Amino acid sequence: MSIRPAIGGENEMKAKIHVTLKQGVLDPQGKAVENALSALGFGGVSGVRQGKYIELELGETDPEKAQSQVEEMCRKLLANTVIEDYAIDIAEG
Amino acid sequence: MSIRPAIGGENEMKAKIHVTLKQGVLDPQGKAVENALSALGFGGVSGVRQGKYIELELGETDPEKAQSQVEEMCRKLLANTVIEDYAIDIAEG
Repeated sequence: MSIRPAIGGENEMKAKIHVTLKQGVLDPQGKAVENALSALGFGGVSGVRQGKYIELELGETDPEKAQSQVEEMCRKLLANTVIEDYAIDIAEG
Repeated sequence: MSIRPAIGGENEMKAKIHVTLKQGVLDPQGKAVENALSALGFGGVSGVRQGKYIELELGETDPEKAQSQVEEMCRKLLANTVIEDYAIDIAEG
């Protein structure tokens, strides 16, 4: 028997976050991957960009609150907004 | 006027690759992010996992060939398949 009240949006939210370098910002890590792929014999590969992918679970059950909370996390910690963009995808966990 | 022959699948393919730690593998980087978020006052955050996100352009125009080429790149270079999983998303560039 559950004692948790059945209010709307009962499920906790999960966030998937992509942090990528802004266009025009040099990506030495991506360039290194590109060179390594070429050295391994994979021809025709270009435009390699490497970013971060972060998954996390939130105590929040309201999707809108979850979204704004994660945006704040990105601005304050997860992304360097001078050179990086972030994209957030919120879903029920 | 284009002199490129109009054979099917004319557009080059773009790959989006997620490399994530397998379940059960400890993620100290994710744990550090979790602790930092908690220190910044974001409560209720758990299960933080950090992975890599790679975008690249292929010379290949056939989606199936592109997929198998990128799988080989993941096995040989981009992912450590002992501890990491990879997911590939191929689309026209």
